[in-house]
This record gives sequence, C-alpha cells and structure tokens, in this order.
Amino acid sequence: MGGRTGATSVAELVEAARGGSPRAVARLVSLVEDGASRPDRDDLAARLREAMALLAPHTGRAHVVGLTGAPGVGKSTSTSALVTELRRLGRRVGVLAVDPSSPFSGGALLGDRIRMGDHATDAGVYIRSMASRGHLGGLAWSTPQALRVLDAAGFDVVLVETVGVGQSEVEIAGLADTTVVLLAPGMGDGIQAAKAGILEVGDLYVVNKADRDGADQVRRELRGMLNLADRPADAWKQPILPTVAQTGEGVAAVAEQLDAHRAWLADTGALDRRRRRRARAEVEAIAMTALRRTWAGFAGGASLDDLADDVVAGRRDPYAAADRLLDTTANG
Amino acid sequence: MGGRTGATSVAELVEAARGGSPRAVARLVSLVEDGASRPDRDDLAARLREAMALLAPHTGRAHVVGLTGAPGVGKSTSTSALVTELRRLGRRVGVLAVDPSSPFSGGALLGDRIRMGDHATDAGVYIRSMASRGHLGGLAWSTPQALRVLDAAGFDVVLVETVGVGQSEVEIAGLADTTVVLLAPGMGDGIQAAKAGILEVGDLYVVNKADRDGADQVRRELRGMLNLADRPADAWKQPILPTVAQTGEGVAAVAEQLDAHRAWLADTGALDRRRRRRARAEVEAIAMTALRRTWAGFAGGASLDDLADDVVAGRRDPYAAADRLLDTTANG
Repeated sequence: MGGRTGATSVAELVEAARGGSPRAVARLVSLVEDGASRPDRDDLAARLREAMALLAPHTGRAHVVGLTGAPGVGKSTSTSALVTELRRLGRRVGVLAVDPSSPFSGGALLGDRIRMGDHATDAGVYIRSMASRGHLGGLAWSTPQALRVLDAAGFDVVLVETVGVGQSEVEIAGLADTTVVLLAPGMGDGIQAAKAGILEVGDLYVVNKADRDGADQVRRELRGMLNLADRPADAWKQPILPTVAQTGEGVAAVAEQLDAHRAWLADTGALDRRRRRRARAEVEAIAMTALRRTWAGFAGGASLDDLADDVVAGRRDPYAAADRLLDTTANG
Repeated sequence: MGGRTGATSVAELVEAARGGSPRAVARLVSLVEDGASRPDRDDLAARLREAMALLAPHTGRAHVVGLTGAPGVGKSTSTSALVTELRRLGRRVGVLAVDPSSPFSGGALLGDRIRMGDHATDAGVYIRSMASRGHLGGLAWSTPQALRVLDAAGFDVVLVETVGVGQSEVEIAGLADTTVVLLAPGMGDGIQAAKAGILEVGDLYVVNKADRDGADQVRRELRGMLNLADRPADAWKQPILPTVAQTGEGVAAVAEQLDAHRAWLADTGALDRRRRRRARAEVEAIAMTALRRTWAGFAGGASLDDLADDVVAGRRDPYAAADRLLDTTANG
C-alpha cells in the first residue's frame, strides 16, 4: 500500500525490521553494504538516507559490545558462547562480524555458517558478516549505520566482532560502548601485539583457552601491564576473565561483567561521552564521503587530481593545494 | 641577516637543509612534528606552511622506500644493513622510523641509537624517528611532510620504516614508491598476518634470518600466495629475497631490486601514478585537518559536537547532521 510496485518501500522495511522481521533487518544491512560498495548509485544513497532518517528516533537502546582479538584466539567460538549465555538471560542478540582486512565476505561467511549452526533456529539471534575493506569509508562509514539498523530493530545487545590487526581494534573501540579484547595462550606475539594498542582499548579482557598451558602467564603479564598503565583513580578497573569458550566455562562471568560495565558507563556519564564520540565519527565519515565526491569533480575547476598533479610537479605546495580544494568546497 | 633576532628564519633553515646541514634537516622535521602535536600553535602552523612552500620546488627526486614487517622480523637490523649497502653504492640515505602505535618516541629512539652506532659519523646518512599516534592526522599528515624535507635536502633514498600492524603497512605503501615487506621464519602468525594485507602492498619481499630453520618454508608459502593473487600480466613480479641482515648476506640483492623496481616504475608510468596518489592523500589530510578545526568551532552555529548530541538523542539522523556540517563549511 503506497509502496512502489515490485519493491518494498523503505518505510515498510523499517517498520518490519522494528517488528522483528529478520528478513527486513537483513535487507536494511544489505542496503548499508550496497550503499558503501556502490557510491555511484544515487538511488541506493537516497534509500539509505531515508532508512537512516526513519531509524534515528528508535536508536540508543542497544548495548553495543565490540569483540576483538588476534587470529587464532577463538573469536567465533567465544562469540557463539556469549550469544548462548545472553540468550539464557533472555536478551535479544545481534552479531555483526566485520572483516576489515578483506574486500570479500567469503571467509567471514564461512564463520557465520559455523556459528549459525547453534543459533539458526533462534529468532532472538541475528548474525551477519560485513566486509568493509575497499568500500566507501571502510569500517567507519558502514559499521555505525549497520549498528543503527540492529539497534532500532530492538536487539538488546549488538556484538561487533572483528579481527584485531592493529588499527581495527582501535576503530572498533570507537564504535562500541564496551570493548572486549580476547587473548589466548600460545599465540607468541600475543602480548607484544597487545602492547601495540590493545591495552588502551579493552574494557574487559578475556583469556580464552584458559585450560591450556600458559594461560596463567598471559593473565599475569596482562595484569602487570594494566597496572603499569597510568589511569585516573576513578577509571573502570578492567577485569581479566578466563574462559574456555568451547565448553562455555567462564562465559557467564563475561556476561556479568558486560552488564557491570554498562551500568558503570551509565552511572558515570561515560556512556553519553562514548556515544557522542561515535556519533561525531559517523557524521564526519558521512560528510567526508560527500566532500570526496565534490573533490573528485570539477566544481570551480580545481579537482583533487589536478591539485595532486601540481604538487607532484612542485608547482604548488600541499598547503596551497589544500587551500584551493577548500575554496572549491566553499563555492561548490 | 633578515632573520628574526634569536631565531633562524624558515628560509635560512630550508637553505641550510638543501646545503646538507643535518641540524637544519632535524629542525625542519621537528617543525613537522611540533605542528602535528600542537595544532593550537598558529605560529608553528605558519612556519610549517612557509617551509613546505619553499621546499616544494625541490622535491620529487628521492626514491621513497617503505620498509615494514611484524615486530621481531629484524627491521632495525635490516634498515641498518640496507643503509650500509646503499652508502657503498654512493647514495645519500635518509631514514624515517615511524612508530604508528606509540604516542611517545621513546622506543623508536632507542632503536635509533642502536642504528646510529653504525652510521653516526657518516654525513651521508640521516636517521630520525617520529611518533605519530595521537597527533594531528597521524601518519597521513606528518609523514609526507617529513618526507618532503628529506627529499628536498637531497637524499637519494629515503627509507620509511614502520612496524607492520595491519593498517599501518597499507598506509606506508600509500606513501612509498617502493614497499619492502620483511618476514622471518618462526614468527608463528607471520604468514597469517601476511594474508591480512601484506600481500597487496609488497613490491619486494625479504625473508630475513634466512639461515634459520623454516626460512625456505616461509618463502615457499609466500610464493604460493603471490602466485594465487590475481594480477595483470604486465604487473611487476614481486621478488622474494633471502637475507641475513646481521651479516649483510643478501642485502646487495635487495638494493639491486630496489633499483630495478624504481626503473620499472619510471618506465611504466607507475611512478607518476603512485606519487599522484600520495599527493592526493597529503592534500586531503591537510584539508581535512583544516575542516576539523572549522567543525570543532561554532561557525554558523552548528559544531560537530552539537550535531553529535542531536544524533545521540535521535533528534537528527547522521545524514541530516552531515548536511548541516557541510552547510557550515560552505558558509565558514
């Protein structure tokens, strides 16, 4: 009714997603992905804008949990175990598995199928993988918009799972209310990688495969490093939790600490600050994308490509080129 | 003479740097770093702009070589050995050691001191570490400007060394004419990490510690993966070179292949394309920084913070907020 013939209107999709239709949720997340991979398609961009405008008033309820760790620590298994535990507690759970290193979602999809095995028939669980590399704006552009879909669809918890490869866990931490960093014994570089950035982003640390040799040492080293970090006295004290995701051992404590951190965030005002930071990044990423479009064109005669040529040739320095670019923006 | 009392003018610094003064080069690179870490200091910004304008006509000669690899593969030793070999060939060599994971340059400076041991008395070598994290625009903002200083100062080769942690090697590859990816046997995650991004960025692959067990296997696996990658027939065929950086074994072949790749780039027009891409990124990063300043303010009444608040509260969707932000820009 009122929708275009042969296509579901965006308003109908949003309504169905809010009513709990997994198919509608899937179509909206696909719209985000398609919008990211086909920036030339104005029709997709318009539908996506419309969807985001309709979803906006219904967002802000979900607890957004980032889950990251190096390859091999057991991310998929841990996600699945955590979903099981959260379901036991009666929560509706959405999972976004983001692969920042791959332009394909092949690998991630395989992981999905494995995880879906446990949750395929459960209407309270929605699992979706997203490939982001090579797409418009990458993670920063598409993940918050996909989160927005799941949030508005009424999931109590949205888990964003990503491979920890340096930059990406920092980005995930920027998106999440609560960031869970997974470690495991026997990873060799594990702790060294941890030094590179993980220490600053984790709200919860989970040492998975805790039944294996070396797990205690990983916990001790991590505790030592966390104690060394210079943090204010009223900061959240990051717990280090041992799990065996394969059997579910220790996973209930992880869920408890997720709730505890969520409560701490709300009590201290940190939740608002994190969400404001996330919204800032999201708005900036969308604005940047629009600007890049302008800059690629020839508004005012100075495209970024022309200016880059001038810089390569030494005819213009990069600051003068940037000034010219911004003139174009202001007049565009 | 003409300079301000008690301070060397930027023009004098640029002149001295072009004349080969390591002290002048150091002061200009420091100006880049200070400009990145103190975006509030308009005087620094003005001096930096002036420096970049004066340097611009003298850039474009240096061969910019990116050198990246996971922690433990022997990056410092390899850089030092490569510097020795390039000096043997009569080249002047500048080294920028960029640590994308640290807001301090403490760790990198230690590495510098070790390397400087071999080259401290050699006026044909300049080694400098830069910390970039937490600074204005990060790697993308400061590294190209520091490169510009070394390039204009007449170094034949500028090596940009960085720890490979996912995103950073992709960024380095964006900056370099030629990207060298270092691997070593016994790194556990080495090849897996490689899958995550290294395969797309390397022009040369160096398997260091080639005298150790497993080196052949690393080369075979890498070759297998490179052969699988779908590349055009006229693409550069990436060599895989064994070295023992500690003894210098194999390093001459690396230097040869650097020259071969440089020649290939020039012959095929790929050099221009890469440099244009680099200039694009540089100009965009500078323009972005200027925009972020505007967006942080209250031009037109809509700061990014206010808009983020609206988005968090569901009063505005992120697209509408981005539109408002861009209106501010156009009128600012």
